[in-house]
Amino acid sequence: MEKIDSHKVYVEPFHVDFTGRIFMGVLGNHLLNAAGNHSTRRGWGIGALNETQHTWVLSRLSIEMTEMPRNYENIEIRTWVESVMKLFTNRNFSILREDGTPMGYARSVWAMIDIDTRKPCDLLTLYDGDILRYVVSEEENVCPIEGHGRFRFNNAALVRTIQPQYSDIDINGHVNSIKYVEHILNLFPLQQFEKGIRRFEIAYKTEARMGDELSFYVQEGEHGEKDVEVKKADGSVVCQSRIIFFE
Amino acid sequence: MEKIDSHKVYVEPFHVDFTGRIFMGVLGNHLLNAAGNHSTRRGWGIGALNETQHTWVLSRLSIEMTEMPRNYENIEIRTWVESVMKLFTNRNFSILREDGTPMGYARSVWAMIDIDTRKPCDLLTLYDGDILRYVVSEEENVCPIEGHGRFRFNNAALVRTIQPQYSDIDINGHVNSIKYVEHILNLFPLQQFEKGIRRFEIAYKTEARMGDELSFYVQEGEHGEKDVEVKKADGSVVCQSRIIFFE
Repeated sequence: MEKIDSHKVYVEPFHVDFTGRIFMGVLGNHLLNAAGNHSTRRGWGIGALNETQHTWVLSRLSIEMTEMPRNYENIEIRTWVESVMKLFTNRNFSILREDGTPMGYARSVWAMIDIDTRKPCDLLTLYDGDILRYVVSEEENVCPIEGHGRFRFNNAALVRTIQPQYSDIDINGHVNSIKYVEHILNLFPLQQFEKGIRRFEIAYKTEARMGDELSFYVQEGEHGEKDVEVKKADGSVVCQSRIIFFE
Repeated sequence: MEKIDSHKVYVEPFHVDFTGRIFMGVLGNHLLNAAGNHSTRRGWGIGALNETQHTWVLSRLSIEMTEMPRNYENIEIRTWVESVMKLFTNRNFSILREDGTPMGYARSVWAMIDIDTRKPCDLLTLYDGDILRYVVSEEENVCPIEGHGRFRFNNAALVRTIQPQYSDIDINGHVNSIKYVEHILNLFPLQQFEKGIRRFEIAYKTEARMGDELSFYVQEGEHGEKDVEVKKADGSVVCQSRIIFFE
């Protein structure tokens, strides 16, 4: 089997913002679907893993676009495994126009956990290291965007506190990873999105559930980037995010 | 060309609620996509209409399910025009399992307006009445669910007031029709959804924009149905909805 998968996506009218660009959360959802299909086709998708009491957990996602897909556009998402370490695997993506030219790229980091103990598993030995067969060569790994950044919150202001609602909760009873993207971007005024988002990063730290109050703190970085930290009432960090808007 | 179109949908993992059933808003979005495709293929989609300064406006949508599609399920949506009157057209839907058996049905009402004047157009004469060619016969129109109900609010309590956010606004600058479904269902506690929704109705009255404060009023009907009215600060009614949960 090929190492790189192709996932075709049509940009639906209700999935674009007021500028006609796809919502970042919707694009993120398409990336996660592409990742899920890639894993499933190779025998280590969620379904197969559940049988052995394992599941994938998304730890980081960074998306960087030169241009966002627009209403009615047909795009292609390509995804592959860049590398596998003991506790994490790096999966990359490219997002292509219908003519095959790149519009952007994404990087992600995943861990595998035991469903009962919630402890991470050794990816190098799981299924006899089968995943290693799909690691692409350096030449195939074309993902010319920066790695995941580091967050340092020292000056963040509380902007909003929300109670998760029915539509936030996924089949595992957790706040849906993609819904955080939506809530985080909703912190900013509409005009901020006129030129679009150049880069969006998110780091998932702790899962939240119905009943967990989520507070959103924002600080602006040296280069105009917006850093957002989401915390529960007990102070534990749920996720951290960085948004770089086009100037 | 056939009168009835088929639209295939795969139920994505991030599109289901904590019970594993597709979110009603996501199902509604699929129905609207099926409707859009059906219109576009016959030459009266949004794109063609925009050239003559016309557009479709959704007035009513009622969805009634015996069972909701679940995570990873492949479903089929069939849609057709039931009837055309001067100012409105009725479009129906069936939602089928992969084996072709029905899981539910939906009814919708659409008007066509002039984009500049926002006034309704005469559907019977538009494009020389071309749409009439696609009205199905009585035998083909299999949609065994009740018509759209009437709302009478006399006892509704204010439950929530929200400010529309970035993620609520569509390409026309209005609050997205589907986002109302999400906000309305978010008024209810998680446990309410354990058995699922049997019927969901919505009537769109006035468009809302960024900056319009939306207040949600809820009243319970004689038979346990939940009626929701959404109003702007000036008292104008934005939409009305009825939800019937499975007992």
